[in-house]
Order: sequence, then structure tokens, then C-alpha cells
Amino acid sequence: MKTGNSGVGKTDLQEISEIIKKADTLALYPHVNMDGDTLGSCMALCLALKAMGKKVDVIIDDAIPDNLKFLDDGSCTEDLKKGEGVDIACCLDCADRERLGKRGTLFPSAGITVSIDHHMVANPFCDYNYTDTEAAATGEIVYKLLEIMDFPGSKEAGNALFTAITTDTGNFQYSNTRGETHRIMAKLYDWGIEPDRVSVLIYDSNRPERLMLESLSLSRMELLLGGKVAISYVSQKMLEQAGAEMYESERIVNELRSIAGVEVSCLVKENSIRECKVSMRSKNDFDISLLASKFHGGGHKKAAGFTLNKSLDQAMLTVKNALLESEIGKKEDA
Amino acid sequence: MKTGNSGVGKTDLQEISEIIKKADTLALYPHVNMDGDTLGSCMALCLALKAMGKKVDVIIDDAIPDNLKFLDDGSCTEDLKKGEGVDIACCLDCADRERLGKRGTLFPSAGITVSIDHHMVANPFCDYNYTDTEAAATGEIVYKLLEIMDFPGSKEAGNALFTAITTDTGNFQYSNTRGETHRIMAKLYDWGIEPDRVSVLIYDSNRPERLMLESLSLSRMELLLGGKVAISYVSQKMLEQAGAEMYESERIVNELRSIAGVEVSCLVKENSIRECKVSMRSKNDFDISLLASKFHGGGHKKAAGFTLNKSLDQAMLTVKNALLESEIGKKEDA
Repeated sequence: MKTGNSGVGKTDLQEISEIIKKADTLALYPHVNMDGDTLGSCMALCLALKAMGKKVDVIIDDAIPDNLKFLDDGSCTEDLKKGEGVDIACCLDCADRERLGKRGTLFPSAGITVSIDHHMVANPFCDYNYTDTEAAATGEIVYKLLEIMDFPGSKEAGNALFTAITTDTGNFQYSNTRGETHRIMAKLYDWGIEPDRVSVLIYDSNRPERLMLESLSLSRMELLLGGKVAISYVSQKMLEQAGAEMYESERIVNELRSIAGVEVSCLVKENSIRECKVSMRSKNDFDISLLASKFHGGGHKKAAGFTLNKSLDQAMLTVKNALLESEIGKKEDA
Repeated sequence: MKTGNSGVGKTDLQEISEIIKKADTLALYPHVNMDGDTLGSCMALCLALKAMGKKVDVIIDDAIPDNLKFLDDGSCTEDLKKGEGVDIACCLDCADRERLGKRGTLFPSAGITVSIDHHMVANPFCDYNYTDTEAAATGEIVYKLLEIMDFPGSKEAGNALFTAITTDTGNFQYSNTRGETHRIMAKLYDWGIEPDRVSVLIYDSNRPERLMLESLSLSRMELLLGGKVAISYVSQKMLEQAGAEMYESERIVNELRSIAGVEVSCLVKENSIRECKVSMRSKNDFDISLLASKFHGGGHKKAAGFTLNKSLDQAMLTVKNALLESEIGKKEDA
């Protein structure tokens, strides 16, 4: 490990910019289970560095989600050979070594390793680790890096950064959004970005099967504790009926939370006859991660989840009882 | 009519700022069928002017939609007497005299009338008419007016402007959004705005009946013309089954458009046994307003609608045939 620096500040980003300037070949790494921020950040940096004449590949671990495929200009590859012997390997939005997946042994083989992230990095594993937890998205940090590197901007790199920022901020609604987020967005308009076209690609690319699954699950919604809890489920039978995949259930728990008066929403997903995954959301004050931790799950205050080794019926009962016994249930009794 | 000016530019807004400064009593007018931009703009201006010591009422024509009630600090009133004899009557986001509704005779009774809007005003009807069609929302113009008036900003006025801007730009996704929109948003953060809390109020205040109605309608979705058209309906029976009101069907046509490959979505709403309202959306190039105009309807390229004096079954057939015979149907044949 050449340098073990970690911190927030322009000095570090300046340092990273100088290292990158000297490199000829780079491999960029998004985290596993790619989202808009990790892939948008990688692609923006990739496009900018290619415009500077460098050889850049984005080494991916899994298939690009359908609605993000428009980001790939052909630089994304699952061919690990392309990451061998590069000057710099840089992971973006990938706070944890585990989030490299099967690329974990390839990554450190580069001359220099770099991490750029907006998550708290518990165990820095790169030669250069830059973290800014104030940034709403890793895309914000990439914007600043490119500004330092005097990148003049381009429509495609800008669209990738817009994707990173808009998806990680829930379209500028989440509490991580800040004035600086909008200041960066304003500058991206000078790059010629197309937020309307890109938003259609990101959000209006649902399979009809997803809508059918949502319809089936919403029709089974139950309101508990005087309307403070909304709960539903997705069974294997419902997936079959809709022709949908389980990942297409992801919006349902947010839909359930969108009901007036609902403080906690919950979706129980039947993975198999003896395993269910439970997703929960909270709207205001209730800390849902406390409930998830009782079942050895994880997450944060407003979004958490856990797994139960139970049948769907048993899992629904367990979750309902847990909610009844939680603070949200106690408040109801009062 | 004292002055018949109409145009874009700081001079006009400066002029309006000076007129308002001299006034002691003001009545502000949102348009009928209030939305986030008209009410957010009125309330932001109202709160700022009250902070400057003026007497201000917001004269409304109809009930405030549930999800926008948080904007009202008690200034909103349906009591037309409060608008009588004021120094200034100012309508916001209300390009057309007809959009004053039953307040149409009260409005011109003020000493001076002012219009502030981002829509093209075909027939200016106020003493002072300020229009900036580049602005994504009337809220943007109100921000600029308050800046000219040296308003120091406040959390509540900022939240109202955030509401105006985020609702009229589809959370910064529509093509009316521009760099300037984000520059204004960045400044509103300095006012202490709470976009996360406000977004929950705006968007997460659905009745469960709305979700049930969506579920019922989505389960009846049909894909036509090789998946380029998605169509569904809402019958009176479905409203009864869900316990929902017709206005709660408004998101369904957007949901239908969100399907990959769908270019045009369509929702047929049964108002009575002999009247149906048809809402249509288009995703990319197809100009849906041309189709609507054939049925004496209105709208613009990507959102249009019309009314048919037919039963639900007949209306569905008419719409399907019209789509088949339209450009989108012809492209399918090619």
C-alpha cells in the first residue's frame, strides 16, 4: 500500500486528479448489484478520461439493469482480463471490499488502487481512499474531480452524472440532497444534459409484468394499527401469475408508505417455501432499523430489511406481531 | 387599465416590486383547480409580504387539495369579502381570465391588478402583466421578485417555492427544467427549506382507496400495436369497488406510459353511462394532441385529452380505432 490517506477535502481530490493524469490505462469498478450512482459515476469518469486519450474499461460483476443500459458506450465488460496490469484500478461508490464481488482478486493487481465514495468507509482497502459523506451521490464527487481535471464537459458524461445524482437523491427529494447538489446540477446543464430524455430511460422502462405484480400485491394490502402500518406480500404464485421477477417488487413497499397516515410499510417476499425477505420503510420518526436488527437484519432509520427462515404465512404473522409489539404498536395502545 | 405592459425582463419585475412595496393590502389569486405551482407561488409571496408588514389574503375558488393543505398558514380563504377594496389584486400562474372562476368579478375591483405567470398570456387582462415563458414554474418568478424586494428568505416561504417548482417540473425531470431552476433551488437551501419533509407531504398523502383503484385499473391493462400502446379504463363500478373518487385515477395513465416500448398510453374514464373522459400520454415523438384535437380535445404533444359522449364500451372501441388509424398505428403496419 503506497499511501494510506483517507479523508475529506480538496487536497485529496487534487492528489487523486494528479495520479489519474499520469496514468495511461485505467479500470473502473462499480459495486455489485449496480445502481444509477455507481454506474453513472463510473461511466462519467470513463467518458471523460477517454476524451483525455486514456484507455479505460469499466469492469462489471453482473449484468447492467435494463433501465441503465443506455449509459454503456461499450466500455462495460465482464471480461476480467481487461482489468489486468492497468496503471490504476478505481472503484466508485464501493465502500466495502466485499462489494467488488468476484472481481475482488483482480482489483488489487493494478499499479495503484483508488476508492471514491460518499459512504463511510469502515476499512479503507485502497492506496488512495477519498470519502465525502456530505455528498448526496458519488456522482457529485466525480463532478468535482472532473472540474479539478479541467474536463470541459460533455453531454454524455453529464447525462451519466445526472443519472447518478437523480437516482441517489430520489429525484432531489431525499434528505441527502443539499444546495451543493443543485449547484452541480445547474453546471451540468452547461454540459448539454438531457434530463427529460434520460428520466424516461431510467424510470419508464418497466416491463408490463412489473405493473401486473404491483397490481396483485396492492390488491392484497392490509392496514394495521389504525392505519399506521400498511403491509402486503409477494408470493411465488403471484410472480408466476404476473410473469414477473422478484426484483420487480421493489417499488411496492414505497407505494404502501405513500398512503396518508401510514408510518411504516412492509412487504414480505416469499423467496422459497421456507425463506422470506422482509422490506420495511418508515415515513417520519419511527426507526425501522431497530426492528430489523431484532431479526439480524440491517438498514437505516427509514429503510431496512431482514430475512426469515419461515413460510410466507408464518412470516406474515411474525412481522405483524413484531410491529404490534414495537414502539409503533405501543403508541397505538396509548 | 393603468398600464398595459407585457413582456419578459427584470425591468418589469422591478416595476411590479415597486408597486407592491407601496401597497398595504393585497389579495393573491391562484387559478381554479389549484396545483402546487399556483398555490405554492401564492403562499410564498403571501408569507414574504406578511413578513414585510402587509395585510395579505389568498382568495381561493375551491377547496385546497389534501396534499397541499400544509401550505396554508391560515391566509387562504373562500370569503370573497376579503378581496374587496384591496390596494392590489395579484393572480399567479393564472394566464386566462377564466381561470379566476367565480372570483372573476371580484378580482378587477382592486386598485391595481397584477398577473405573474410562466404561461403565454394570450389576452392580458391586468394593469401589469409579467410573463416569463422560460421559467419552469411561476415559483421561479416569485423567487426572483422576492430577491428584487430584498426578502431575506424564510423556511416556510422556501418550502412553498420548493413545492411550486418540484411539482411543475415533475421533480426536475421535465424538459421545462433548466440550469436556472437548479440555481434557484440551491439558493432556497440557504432559506432552510425541508424538501424531504415537504415531498412526503406532497406525494405520500394518498388514500388507500387510490392504490386500490390503481390496482384494479392496472389489472385491466391491454397492450396494443405490438406493445406501443397501453390502454386501460376506470368504470363507475371500479370506483365503487375501491371506494375511490375519479380524481384519484390521475396517476394511472403515467403508470401505463412507464412500460418499456410503450409510446402512447391511454386511460378511459367513465364519468356517466353516456360520457367518458379520455386521458392520453406520449413518451417520445408521437404528438398526442393531434389525435385529441380530432375529438375536439386539447393538450400538448405529450399530454392531451378529450371527452366522448359514449358509453365506456363504445368509448374504448372508438379510442382503439383512432389509435389504429393514427400515425402510431401506421408505423406499426410499416
